[in-house]
Amino acid sequence: MNDPNTPGWLDEIQWDDQGLVPVIAREQGSGQVLTLAWMNRAALTATVAEGRAVYWSRSRGRLWRKGEESGHLQKIHEIRLDCDKDAILLEVTQEGGIACHTGRHHCFFHKLENGAWRVVDPVLKDPREIYSRK
Amino acid sequence: MNDPNTPGWLDEIQWDDQGLVPVIAREQGSGQVLTLAWMNRAALTATVAEGRAVYWSRSRGRLWRKGEESGHLQKIHEIRLDCDKDAILLEVTQEGGIACHTGRHHCFFHKLENGAWRVVDPVLKDPREIYSRK
Repeated sequence: MNDPNTPGWLDEIQWDDQGLVPVIAREQGSGQVLTLAWMNRAALTATVAEGRAVYWSRSRGRLWRKGEESGHLQKIHEIRLDCDKDAILLEVTQEGGIACHTGRHHCFFHKLENGAWRVVDPVLKDPREIYSRK
Repeated sequence: MNDPNTPGWLDEIQWDDQGLVPVIAREQGSGQVLTLAWMNRAALTATVAEGRAVYWSRSRGRLWRKGEESGHLQKIHEIRLDCDKDAILLEVTQEGGIACHTGRHHCFFHKLENGAWRVVDPVLKDPREIYSRK
């Protein structure tokens, strides 16, 4: 379906039945995978326009400007799409060095070890401190 | 829902309404994001048991032992789960150096440049050659 009012590059993406695609944020320099989040057309359009990651929050049902409360925004260096055009990879700089709402550098801090998920990364900042900026 | 016949670490995962989770494969050493694919319980169980990535192919509706045709399997070094327990990150070695069915090193070879997706990574091996092993 091509909408003459939306740019072709947006229409090329294979949005799922909820109009979303999964988005991986990878940290430039370290190469660490920080987060997996979701975007709809509005989120990706805003990401490109603003040069910072704007996701669709499935739990809150609204656009989520990553860092809007915490200040921990993700500055965009590169946006890539995969072979099937149904997944996006962002190359970012993570402001504040904290991508996770738990106060950790990245979200993938549970490691499978001997049949159990073990927390293997430290909390860098107490979330109560991160989210009391307002 | 806890099934006494399945291990607790599998039950901790927040499977989506189709019983799937998105899975990122990251290459050990280079830190490159190779692929985003999907797993169900059977796929993740097989991945752990076999030490190689086994995905759920949504298009084929069956387990997909990555590399079963091409030989380009992904050897598992580490399995991680994110903060919300609804996304998985694998640390892998990519056999043959080719993760993508197009014959490229990784799947994220379209880069957004001036309002268009441009192919920026080379084909390392002709897919007709990769998939003619049988």
